[in-house]
Amino acid sequence: MGATSTTHTRAAAAELDRADPLASFRNEFLIGTDPPVYMDGNSLGRPPAAVAAALGGVVASGWGERLIRSWSEGWMELPLTLGDRIGALVGAAAGQVAVADSTTVCFYKAACAALDARPGRNEIVTDRGNFPTDRYVLESLATQRGLRLRWIDPVDPTQGPSAQEVAAACSQRTALVTFTHVDYRSAAILDLAAITLVAHDAGALTVWDLSHSAGAVEVALDAGGADLAVGCTYKYLCGGPGAPAFLYVRAEHQQLLRQPIWGWLGRRDPFLMGPGYAPAEGIRAFLSGTPPVLALHAVAAGVELVERAGLKRIRAKGIALTQLAIALADSWLAQLGVTVGSPRDGLRRGAHVALVHPEAASLCERLCARGVLVDHRAPDVVRVGLSPLSTSFVEVWDGLAALRELLAADG
Amino acid sequence: MGATSTTHTRAAAAELDRADPLASFRNEFLIGTDPPVYMDGNSLGRPPAAVAAALGGVVASGWGERLIRSWSEGWMELPLTLGDRIGALVGAAAGQVAVADSTTVCFYKAACAALDARPGRNEIVTDRGNFPTDRYVLESLATQRGLRLRWIDPVDPTQGPSAQEVAAACSQRTALVTFTHVDYRSAAILDLAAITLVAHDAGALTVWDLSHSAGAVEVALDAGGADLAVGCTYKYLCGGPGAPAFLYVRAEHQQLLRQPIWGWLGRRDPFLMGPGYAPAEGIRAFLSGTPPVLALHAVAAGVELVERAGLKRIRAKGIALTQLAIALADSWLAQLGVTVGSPRDGLRRGAHVALVHPEAASLCERLCARGVLVDHRAPDVVRVGLSPLSTSFVEVWDGLAALRELLAADG
Repeated sequence: MGATSTTHTRAAAAELDRADPLASFRNEFLIGTDPPVYMDGNSLGRPPAAVAAALGGVVASGWGERLIRSWSEGWMELPLTLGDRIGALVGAAAGQVAVADSTTVCFYKAACAALDARPGRNEIVTDRGNFPTDRYVLESLATQRGLRLRWIDPVDPTQGPSAQEVAAACSQRTALVTFTHVDYRSAAILDLAAITLVAHDAGALTVWDLSHSAGAVEVALDAGGADLAVGCTYKYLCGGPGAPAFLYVRAEHQQLLRQPIWGWLGRRDPFLMGPGYAPAEGIRAFLSGTPPVLALHAVAAGVELVERAGLKRIRAKGIALTQLAIALADSWLAQLGVTVGSPRDGLRRGAHVALVHPEAASLCERLCARGVLVDHRAPDVVRVGLSPLSTSFVEVWDGLAALRELLAADG
Repeated sequence: MGATSTTHTRAAAAELDRADPLASFRNEFLIGTDPPVYMDGNSLGRPPAAVAAALGGVVASGWGERLIRSWSEGWMELPLTLGDRIGALVGAAAGQVAVADSTTVCFYKAACAALDARPGRNEIVTDRGNFPTDRYVLESLATQRGLRLRWIDPVDPTQGPSAQEVAAACSQRTALVTFTHVDYRSAAILDLAAITLVAHDAGALTVWDLSHSAGAVEVALDAGGADLAVGCTYKYLCGGPGAPAFLYVRAEHQQLLRQPIWGWLGRRDPFLMGPGYAPAEGIRAFLSGTPPVLALHAVAAGVELVERAGLKRIRAKGIALTQLAIALADSWLAQLGVTVGSPRDGLRRGAHVALVHPEAASLCERLCARGVLVDHRAPDVVRVGLSPLSTSFVEVWDGLAALRELLAADG
C-alpha cells in the first residue's frame, strides 16, 4: 500500500520547490484558478501569460495599423529570426533554422530533400517505435518512390536504438537514417552524434525529430554533425496548439539540398513574382507558403521564456522532476504493478517518464477525471510529462499520489 | 487635369456610403485613429475587431484551462467545422473542405492527388499569368515527375483564358488543368464550369485556386463540377497574415484521391498511434499535421463577418466599388496615361481593379508614402483591392484622387 517514507513526503516536495531557481517561472504561465495537476506539458505546453497580449499587440499594430507594410517591416524575416532563436536552443548557429508549416510537413520536406540527394539508394532506416507521423510520412515516401523501410526493433526499447543497432541496419543502400532524438514514449535520448556518424559512414543523410527535445534537453545539431532536423514548438516551447514547426538544414547542405514544395516564399525575390522558380539563398529556400504571422508571435512568447530561464537550468530541473517521479514510482507504485519504462540515468532521459501498467488506458482516463492530466500511450504507458518551467515538484507529488490512490483502491 | 464631373464628387461617393447596406460592417474592423486609405484588402484583409478577443478567449479557456482536453472538446473537429463554413461560401456542401497548412502546401497536396489519379498522362495545363506560388509548385511537380507544363497565353490577358483556349491546350495527355478562379492581377473571373467541362472531356482533373474569390465573389464548386480547389483565408476572409488555407475535395473523389503527405492527423484513429498508415474517412484524410488552433480561431472571426453580411450583398458592393474605381479612372486618369486592365463587365470581375501605367512601380511607392496602400504587380499594374466589408466608397474616391494628383503633378 506504499507507506510514505520521510523523504517522500509532500513537505519534502514543497522544499524542492522552495529551492528551485526556476520556481518563479510558473507565475509566467496562465494557470487557472482551479488548475489541474498538469503532467502533459510535453504534449501541449501551458500558455505563457504574455501570449494573449503579444497576439493582441500584433493584431492591433502590425496587422491593424501597418497592414501590408508589415511584410517589409519584419514579417518576412520572422520565420528566420525566430528560427535563429530556436536554433540557439538546439545547438545550431544562425542561418540554419526556419519556422514554418506543421511538424509533419517539415518532416516531409526534410525527408524528401535527403532522399533526393541520395539517388540510387533505396532504403530508409528508422525504428518501429518512432513517432507515428514520422512513420506515416516515411511510408508515404516509400510507397511513392518504391523504397524499402528498414525498421529497427531495439533490443532494449526503453533505451531506444543504439549506434550499433543502427550500424547493423545501414548499408550502401541506405539513403536516409531518421529518428526522434527523445523518444515520445520512453523519453530515451538517442546518441545523435554517434548515430549520425554511423549514417555518414554508410553514405546516408540524417533527419532528426527534436519534438520532445527542443526547450527541454540540450541538443548539439551543429557539433553532432546532423544534416537535417525538424521539431515542434507546442510542447516545451509553449507555442500553442498546432503551432508552426521548425526545420534545420545544415549550412553546408543548403546549396545542394532542395525541398519539394516550391512556393513563392522560398523563391529568390518573391515579390517580383517572376517566371520560373529559383531558390532563395540559404535556409529561406526551405520555406513554401506565407509565414503564419500570428502563430509565430505566439511561438516567440514561449521561446522568450525558455531563453530567459536558460536551457542548462531547465535541463537540470527536468532531470530533478523526472527523478522525483521515478523515486515515487519505485517507492509507491512498484508494489502496485507499475514499472518504470524510461532510462534511470537522468542524462539519458528527457523530461517525461513512462509508467508502465497493463491497465494504463483506464488509469489515464480515471486520472484525467480527477484533474490529473496525463497521456496514455498505447498499449501500456501512463506518460507523465514534466515541463520544467511550468511544473512544480508538489505537482509531481500530487499526481503520483493520485495514481497511487487509484491503484491502491483497485487492490 | 481631369475637371471633376458632378457625378464624380466626393459628396457623391459619400452618398453611396450612406446608401450602402453593408456600411456598418466597417465598424466591425480594427481601423486605427489615422487610418490609411486601404486598397489592398485583397492582399491582406483588415483585422476583424473581434479577433483579439477571440484569440484571448481560446488562450485563456481552451488552451489555458482545458489544456489537452480541448482536443476532444472541439479542436480535432475545427479544421472540418470551419471548413464546412468556408465551403458554404464557395458552393461546397458539407464534408468537402478542410482548413490546414498554407495555400502553397494545400495546392501541392491537391495537385499531387490529381496527378496520382491520372497515371500515364504527362501534361499539366495552366496559364502563364497564374499566381506565382501555383506556377512554382507546378514546376516542382513537373521536374520531380518528368511532366510537361503547357502554358496558355490568353489572347486577351485582361479576360484570362477562355474555355476554348483551354480546350485547345487539352488532350489525352492532360492529367491536370489548374487555374486561379479570379486572376490576381486583372481580377478576371474564369468560367469555372465551362473550363471544368473541357478538362473532364479530355479526361483530366481540375484544381481551382480560389484565393481571390473566397469571401468576395460567388463560387459554385459543387454545381460547376470542380474536382479539387484551394484558397487563402487572409484576403477577403480576413483571417490574418499567413492564416491557414482551405482545401476542397469533391465528395465523390474522396475515396479515390490520396494526398502525398501522410501525417497522423489524416490517419484513421490518430491517437491510437498504430502501425501503418490508413487514411481517415472523407476529407479528414487530406489533413497532415496538427491543426493550427489559434490561427483557426482567427479565421473563424473573419468568416463570421462574411457569413453575417451575406455573400450576395458583398458581391453587389464589390461590383459597385470596382465600378466606381473604373469610372473615376476613365474620367480622371485615362487622359493621364492610365488604362483599365480589368474586365469592364462587373459580372466578370472580382473585387479588385488593375490600373495600368508604365510607371506603376514608382506610383505605388509614392501612393504608399502618402498613406494610400495599393500593390504593385509587375510590370505595370497598380492593383486596387476593394474588400467590400471594410472599404468605403469615399475611400475609393480618396485613393483615386491621390493617384490623379500624383499623375497630374508629373505633368
